Amino acid sequence: MTLKVSDIGEKELVRYIISHSRSITPDDTAITELGSTNLISTTDMLIQSRHFPENMSYFDMGFKAVTVNVSDLAAMGAEPLGFLLAIAMPKDLDLTHFKQIIDGVLKACIYYGIPLIGGDTNEADEIIITGTALGLAEKPIMKDTYDKGDLIAITGDIGLAALGFELDTLDNVYAKHALKPRAKLDEALILRDFATSATDITDGLASELYEIKKDGFGFMIYEEFLGISDEYKELSDQLNLDYLDLIFHVGEDFELLFTLSKENLEKLPIDCRVIGEVTDSDVIELTLENGFVERIENRGYEHYVSEQ
Amino acid sequence: MTLKVSDIGEKELVRYIISHSRSITPDDTAITELGSTNLISTTDMLIQSRHFPENMSYFDMGFKAVTVNVSDLAAMGAEPLGFLLAIAMPKDLDLTHFKQIIDGVLKACIYYGIPLIGGDTNEADEIIITGTALGLAEKPIMKDTYDKGDLIAITGDIGLAALGFELDTLDNVYAKHALKPRAKLDEALILRDFATSATDITDGLASELYEIKKDGFGFMIYEEFLGISDEYKELSDQLNLDYLDLIFHVGEDFELLFTLSKENLEKLPIDCRVIGEVTDSDVIELTLENGFVERIENRGYEHYVSEQ
Repeated sequence: MTLKVSDIGEKELVRYIISHSRSITPDDTAITELGSTNLISTTDMLIQSRHFPENMSYFDMGFKAVTVNVSDLAAMGAEPLGFLLAIAMPKDLDLTHFKQIIDGVLKACIYYGIPLIGGDTNEADEIIITGTALGLAEKPIMKDTYDKGDLIAITGDIGLAALGFELDTLDNVYAKHALKPRAKLDEALILRDFATSATDITDGLASELYEIKKDGFGFMIYEEFLGISDEYKELSDQLNLDYLDLIFHVGEDFELLFTLSKENLEKLPIDCRVIGEVTDSDVIELTLENGFVERIENRGYEHYVSEQ
Repeated sequence: MTLKVSDIGEKELVRYIISHSRSITPDDTAITELGSTNLISTTDMLIQSRHFPENMSYFDMGFKAVTVNVSDLAAMGAEPLGFLLAIAMPKDLDLTHFKQIIDGVLKACIYYGIPLIGGDTNEADEIIITGTALGLAEKPIMKDTYDKGDLIAITGDIGLAALGFELDTLDNVYAKHALKPRAKLDEALILRDFATSATDITDGLASELYEIKKDGFGFMIYEEFLGISDEYKELSDQLNLDYLDLIFHVGEDFELLFTLSKENLEKLPIDCRVIGEVTDSDVIELTLENGFVERIENRGYEHYVSEQ
């Protein structure tokens, strides 16, 4: 029996690539020195059968392809420079649907202020969109440059998309986050002058906390600060799902997870939710509403069940 | 009956995208002003079932993904800056094969002197590789900035890959060009100081000539200057194929097609093959070996038959 890529998992595959290249700095994007500034570049591929829910419109597919890439620019505090689009589709795709995808891409580019500078089309058995986002940052914000005592914050509520994927109805805030995610670029360009570190939440808060963890440092998150509504708990319960699982271990939030000093929190001119603090515990923990403390598991997007 | 994307064709799809974006200059790559220089960026997606011949090794798949993108940098006379890799593969792909693909990518990056700066992996039903190549050029060479009287030249023989795709054997120059194409980056960085225009040949010489044609200008190509060997004609004949069809209408050559003045040809320090000249005929023509002149058809990669 030979080893398959699925035996290794995506993170290990990426680590294999990084370990064999001298030029990759493992943060949210590539960073290339360019005179007095830095070119920030990132690429992400979306595959219809894996990334686009059944009920997602063609417009939203195109919009999301830009969003996932711009989110990485936001994570670095980079100003947008340009977006490249590579798209493949079945040859019997309705021309109208193709135009709707492109319209989604174009509207997203306008929304984020990132010009569409290149396009390439191809034929494949399903819709596949690879976007590349380019930006500039004099001082890119790395993901692990926090200090002990820093506060941990997020730019908005998380877990909404996760619940949205589980619901049948479309006309609610959860489905909206699932089908129409938005990168937090405007917020990034403001918080970069206040934050000590930043990353974007795509695979779930737990996954990102483990991504940014350094030896000797830990994180304490407080459930009561997560702002989980009663409606959220009820809907999860009706679906026989654990609401904390949804919030921590699914992702597709695209909110920014960042750290900053208490002093800078007071000066920060945008809304955010402080959810915890950086410690020296060397573990990642959650203080539940009832006061108990539990270890947060390193689980990203995977099937989850309701805890009793 | 609704219109499908296949009714429109790839060039029209790309034109649709370009016409709706103010920021796309239709040349081989995107060009973004960056201080005293220009960022050159391009993206290309390769899909296993469409772009990788049955007998292509995993290593060569990875290498080609870099080649096709670096070829566009070469077409602009850009120095390489960095390469981003997005790769999707079936979950039951042997880990060994994954490593061979990555090895191909890494070896190609070393070969072209372009650092691999970012990587992303995904799951899909077949191998899909999207590369993005970034470069810098103070004065990018455009594809249609030639003058009347300029000579038309190519950096090497064309039609070799086209024949290679038709042969069963692997141990010959044709199969080598089909399975192991190489971008002409070194040549580009030299000829950019002598050429008036340049592009790379990917869809066949005929297709590229039509891509670069401007109103009021024409091209006269001379069959006797194409350097077609007797062996090439014989092998084509044995396969019941028209050798001129193979040379003009298939592609995958990755040679540079460029123009230059007679004076600069004498100064050009690299080998090249002069194949014709820029005219004011407003048509694209071929003078056959027998002296007859025929219009070159605007046909790219498609099924072809032997002419009698």
